[in-house]
Amino acid sequence: MATLYHHPLCPQSRFVRLVLGEFGMDAMLVEERTFERRVEFLTMNPAGTTPVFVEEQSGPVPGASVIAEYLDETRGLALGERRLLPLDPLGRVEVRRLVEWFNGKMFAEVTNHLVVEKVMKRFMPSDSGGGAPDMGAIRAARTNIRYHLAYVGWLIGGRNWLAGDRLTYADLAAAAQLSTADYLGDVPWQENETAKNWYARVKSRPSFRPLLADRVLGSDPSTHYADLDF
Amino acid sequence: MATLYHHPLCPQSRFVRLVLGEFGMDAMLVEERTFERRVEFLTMNPAGTTPVFVEEQSGPVPGASVIAEYLDETRGLALGERRLLPLDPLGRVEVRRLVEWFNGKMFAEVTNHLVVEKVMKRFMPSDSGGGAPDMGAIRAARTNIRYHLAYVGWLIGGRNWLAGDRLTYADLAAAAQLSTADYLGDVPWQENETAKNWYARVKSRPSFRPLLADRVLGSDPSTHYADLDF
Repeated sequence: MATLYHHPLCPQSRFVRLVLGEFGMDAMLVEERTFERRVEFLTMNPAGTTPVFVEEQSGPVPGASVIAEYLDETRGLALGERRLLPLDPLGRVEVRRLVEWFNGKMFAEVTNHLVVEKVMKRFMPSDSGGGAPDMGAIRAARTNIRYHLAYVGWLIGGRNWLAGDRLTYADLAAAAQLSTADYLGDVPWQENETAKNWYARVKSRPSFRPLLADRVLGSDPSTHYADLDF
Repeated sequence: MATLYHHPLCPQSRFVRLVLGEFGMDAMLVEERTFERRVEFLTMNPAGTTPVFVEEQSGPVPGASVIAEYLDETRGLALGERRLLPLDPLGRVEVRRLVEWFNGKMFAEVTNHLVVEKVMKRFMPSDSGGGAPDMGAIRAARTNIRYHLAYVGWLIGGRNWLAGDRLTYADLAAAAQLSTADYLGDVPWQENETAKNWYARVKSRPSFRPLLADRVLGSDPSTHYADLDF
């Protein structure tokens, strides 16, 4: 069986868990505290970040986008019409642009701040950056998320799924980032009904179920987190 | 002819210029000042970042990695043995990991600080973040670059090129980041002879020549910048 080194609230790890779910693949989940900088983990991914996917025939595959490309190249054809990266080059451009948007830009502007300040800092030793949350960073994240939520709503206003007619990696990347923020109670769903309805569609997929069961010690999820009719 | 929206010191733009050079493709270069947030540019790339590649059959292709994948998918086969993304999935994992390392991690830890603080801030209006350089950010970048230079040296210690036997996107991404830092005089080449010799090999390629001719108003390059025997 494959192994995924992850953290329950790492949105990029959640993206890969959703992807594996859509592929119908099981993986053993190993929780990694990246701030501990374990030597065995750094050997697999010198960048020291989650997620890292490992299977016997591949060795370590580090990074959400690299894993998504690898899985598409080795198993994508078997998904047929449900392939998560379209076959035509321009469809791929749009999916990759949006994956980069959510896993890169939204993560840097929103989700990373929320997870580090509200969760990670409580577990990190002070010489690794632990301590009290930076409320300025949390406020910035809460301001920035409105723009990303509006962008999801705008895209869905003209399309069935984020990158076009079908569910793709773009939807899973956006939903993964939002799911982490939602766990922490920081998604202003009332601001965008269209985005909320799209999220409800992704959230009701079987691949999403394991994420809704996640619990992190000392951080209970928001009351509506696991509610499919939120 | 294709068009590339870029900035001469944007390392991701430089990466794409090197890629186009290796593909033997000409592109019209249009300099974009991303901090001006031109509406026509934001329409092509809502993220507001360079580079954006445009050709008639594609429309806008935004982002260094997305462009590299697009060019490989549409022209890669024609390169034969000189293909910049290997054909086997595990070779692709390693190239993509390293492209992400240099275009993502090194950019965030080193090159972006140097370009913003030493160059961009002089052109930006004060309400867009212009003003005096943050010397703390420059110092952090100068500390961090030593680690990235050492990593290049370490990789080349066991391989002919960064990702293996052949020149790939990984070499072009690393060289592009280093070339921007080198323009600004911030690469401590004396610290790593192995990395320096690898860079000299990339620098002497015909695809590199246009980068060596770059001049940015008010920022002369370091004295050895265009010197192949530096």
